[in-house]
Amino acid sequence: MGASTLTGRIREAYARIADVDRPEIWISLRPEADVLAEAELIARRTEEGDHLPLAGVLVAVKDNIDVAGLETTAGSRAFGYAPSADAPSVARIRAAGAIVLGKTNLDQFATGLVGTRSPFGAVRNAWDPERISGGSSSGSAVATALGIVDVALGTDTAGSGRVPAALNGIFGIKPTVGLVPATGVVPACRTLDCVTVFARDLGLGRRVVEIMTGPDGVDPLCRSDAPAAPLDAAPRIAIPTQEHLAGLAEGWAEAFAGVVEQLRASGVEIVEVDITPLLEAASLLYGGAFVAERTAAVGDFIRSHPELHGTDLDPTVAQIVLGGDSASAADYFRDRERLDRLGLEGERRLDGTVALLTPTTTWHPTLAEVAADPIGANARMGRYTNFANLLDRSALAVPAGFVGGLPFGVMLTGAPFADRTLAEIARRIAAPDIEILVVGAHLRDQPLNAQLVAQGGSFVAEVQTAPEYRLHALPTAPPKPGLRRVPEDGVAIAGEVWRLPAAGFGSFVASLPQPMTIGQVKLADGTSVAGFLCEPVAVDAAPDISASGGWRAHLVSQRAD
Amino acid sequence: MGASTLTGRIREAYARIADVDRPEIWISLRPEADVLAEAELIARRTEEGDHLPLAGVLVAVKDNIDVAGLETTAGSRAFGYAPSADAPSVARIRAAGAIVLGKTNLDQFATGLVGTRSPFGAVRNAWDPERISGGSSSGSAVATALGIVDVALGTDTAGSGRVPAALNGIFGIKPTVGLVPATGVVPACRTLDCVTVFARDLGLGRRVVEIMTGPDGVDPLCRSDAPAAPLDAAPRIAIPTQEHLAGLAEGWAEAFAGVVEQLRASGVEIVEVDITPLLEAASLLYGGAFVAERTAAVGDFIRSHPELHGTDLDPTVAQIVLGGDSASAADYFRDRERLDRLGLEGERRLDGTVALLTPTTTWHPTLAEVAADPIGANARMGRYTNFANLLDRSALAVPAGFVGGLPFGVMLTGAPFADRTLAEIARRIAAPDIEILVVGAHLRDQPLNAQLVAQGGSFVAEVQTAPEYRLHALPTAPPKPGLRRVPEDGVAIAGEVWRLPAAGFGSFVASLPQPMTIGQVKLADGTSVAGFLCEPVAVDAAPDISASGGWRAHLVSQRAD
Repeated sequence: MGASTLTGRIREAYARIADVDRPEIWISLRPEADVLAEAELIARRTEEGDHLPLAGVLVAVKDNIDVAGLETTAGSRAFGYAPSADAPSVARIRAAGAIVLGKTNLDQFATGLVGTRSPFGAVRNAWDPERISGGSSSGSAVATALGIVDVALGTDTAGSGRVPAALNGIFGIKPTVGLVPATGVVPACRTLDCVTVFARDLGLGRRVVEIMTGPDGVDPLCRSDAPAAPLDAAPRIAIPTQEHLAGLAEGWAEAFAGVVEQLRASGVEIVEVDITPLLEAASLLYGGAFVAERTAAVGDFIRSHPELHGTDLDPTVAQIVLGGDSASAADYFRDRERLDRLGLEGERRLDGTVALLTPTTTWHPTLAEVAADPIGANARMGRYTNFANLLDRSALAVPAGFVGGLPFGVMLTGAPFADRTLAEIARRIAAPDIEILVVGAHLRDQPLNAQLVAQGGSFVAEVQTAPEYRLHALPTAPPKPGLRRVPEDGVAIAGEVWRLPAAGFGSFVASLPQPMTIGQVKLADGTSVAGFLCEPVAVDAAPDISASGGWRAHLVSQRAD
Repeated sequence: MGASTLTGRIREAYARIADVDRPEIWISLRPEADVLAEAELIARRTEEGDHLPLAGVLVAVKDNIDVAGLETTAGSRAFGYAPSADAPSVARIRAAGAIVLGKTNLDQFATGLVGTRSPFGAVRNAWDPERISGGSSSGSAVATALGIVDVALGTDTAGSGRVPAALNGIFGIKPTVGLVPATGVVPACRTLDCVTVFARDLGLGRRVVEIMTGPDGVDPLCRSDAPAAPLDAAPRIAIPTQEHLAGLAEGWAEAFAGVVEQLRASGVEIVEVDITPLLEAASLLYGGAFVAERTAAVGDFIRSHPELHGTDLDPTVAQIVLGGDSASAADYFRDRERLDRLGLEGERRLDGTVALLTPTTTWHPTLAEVAADPIGANARMGRYTNFANLLDRSALAVPAGFVGGLPFGVMLTGAPFADRTLAEIARRIAAPDIEILVVGAHLRDQPLNAQLVAQGGSFVAEVQTAPEYRLHALPTAPPKPGLRRVPEDGVAIAGEVWRLPAAGFGSFVASLPQPMTIGQVKLADGTSVAGFLCEPVAVDAAPDISASGGWRAHLVSQRAD
């Protein structure tokens, strides 16, 4: 990527940060000028022939992971400290050319799956600001979903790297614990924590994980990657029995069944298994002595600052963390034995399948619903995620379309070191990409562009339609144009082709507001592509702006007025 | 092995159990008739062509491991239960033809390294009944050292499978935790326990381990074996710096240096390393929250039987186990982190060496010394053994000669799954075997034969000397003959050739009491072999019994008188 392109992308990112008006995403943001200067250096190194596999990839980092020069708060200003160095995970991707924009908000001390437990504000969902982002890696997920950054680092103990991925319609890669060093990460449960990656593009996300992988000589739990068996042509994948798919949000069971059918059609053998032992294991994470690992990490800090409870310290988080005080070491060893036995029994039930497919989470509450019942609402989020790290599993949250206008996600959970295998399976869920022509509010610098980006969309090319169309200015909010094919007096209209995952494309179309429609549009080069059109009833009454040649030129001419 | 040979071996074993008069070795012993009947079946199966790799191997089993038909007490009659099945470890070797004679005494609940903490009596050392056997697998080690059984099963958490091996001059094989299922084993520290093997012959001991290895589908901590890298021709082996070899029993530092020199001479590169982090890790086993795993295992039982403290419940064991009550789960997680960091630092100090060589233990106290300071005396035993299971290490205790007439042992501690590599190195310590002619108290059915057996000795053949010797009855206790070469009127004297490991042979010779000597003896077939002779001063005055043709015949003729 040349210096000017990279500079442009950074300027766009900062513009987007301002446009989306979601200040709660960030706990600290680097000055744009600093980032531009760093980009300059990277561009120069690339030009000089340095191989930087992540050159110019824009990254947000959850604020429980050290980035030199930025405070690490873990969601508490009082807890905050100035790290002397990047965490190895961060250092490795920066050495590969990635550019960190800032540190993101989180459920305090990474304790929560909701994204609301933070004195820096509840993080609103990328698709519906009335709903929660999910957590604890809330800011990282939303910054990625809104297309501000290409990828973001999160952490995951109970599901913090997966639940917010599902609720914001992106990938959440939770590697096997110990592959990525946790050095420089504020511990939640030290033996269960891992660094995760949020991405709209799975390939890019996986590259980031691979670059972060490997012992650093400091984290004693770090371990070397192990080869996974190659994926069968007809792999066997487990799904829960109906009993354990009860209690999902409206339409989610059907959406899940759709993904199962899609996989079956791709040649996967689907096996229903009883996941009771896994769900019982999951319940140990907050229901037993394992909570005391959180107490060991930050309990002393919370206890010694009673004056901050309810202000800088989230009351729900404090209650949970200090709850571990009552457990004895003997309780821990009893819970550990129970967990070990449940793990073995769970493995027996999984019966040699290569992965377990579940919904990633069970519902998508509003901010108000979580505020009304902070612990109960949270508990429902982690049904399928809580057991993975306890039982040393790899996992991958995969976006799988939309239900009721909101993202729906599924999750693959596999053996330790099966990370690459899970990604292979995920590619069967994400169908081939589809191209779409946009001519108005979805253009790169326009207000609805984020919807394309959040769907995993990527810009393909600037194009012109065949000279068979007219463009009208519709009285919508935000303002949009309507494209209309005409039998005569047609002109060429400027637009952009974007590429979207099929699942995202389908949901995108299904959720279009009146009077927008999608149909085939003929381009100047004679080919056709799916593209935005408009109901006749709307264009009939709307001013014809075809003379401008396109929406962007029309807006410029209006400003000139 | 034919039925009659096997029957003979079993009868000899039971005769030896009576002869040695060490009732404290056994908690339960099977009736000889039952064992003979089982042997009959095994002999028949072998004759019918069944491949039974351990056919007729006689085994003792520590009484915290289930053997169907015998009570499992773990050293407490009140705790005892009747197991419904053999533990998988036992079942596997029995399926391979091994024959269990009985269950052996132990430090109660496998808590101790001394062998004295048992209501079934303190187990006396095989070589000196004034001294401790070591523990906790006390009875198993002594039964093996005295040649009653070929191998014995023990368990090891802090060193229970290694310390008594060293103190009784045999091998103590402590596999990587999780290779042998711990199902059917009374837990000491469930996550750290492993089943071990005592053997005079390393090859046989290793075969027993291999047969017991592999997941059983019940023990969740069981894991598959992993291949170890082949041993270099000139492997690098670590030894502690002098500072950490201080405080050894008299002569032990020199004996250890001798083994180091022997290894160096065999082409091993010796590297001095600072093992401080390993010793600090060791101190966590009893000094921190890890004790609570013992509390979780048997604390409720001990607490609920106050009336048994001091009688069926050992007071020192009760004190230790209940001591875990005070630790919180948060304490555990803090200790765990400290342990993990010490492990990583220890590994760094070991600097890629293939194994750490240490003395197995630090001293060999008398029963009285342990009684005077039960916890302090015990603590000194575990200096080099306590960290192995905490840090997931394989280990092997190797007999390495005698100091002051008592066995001295060294230990190899290696990476997980390095078990076979450690055995390869051990073979460099144990030099090639040496043959020795015995003509009196060391013959198979005679009182000192156990010394040969305990040294790893095995019977080779009955032989006659060349007709150049006279035999005299010495006034020693026990009675022994003196063999004397004469210029004329010599006769052939009956004897037995035994094979001994060189290290054992050397120590055996070094510790001979007056007036016995070892020299070359000419056999009837014209060959020469090292054999028992006698100082002239002793035979000059002793009655000539050459007419009997040998010691055994002489004893028979005396009984006939």
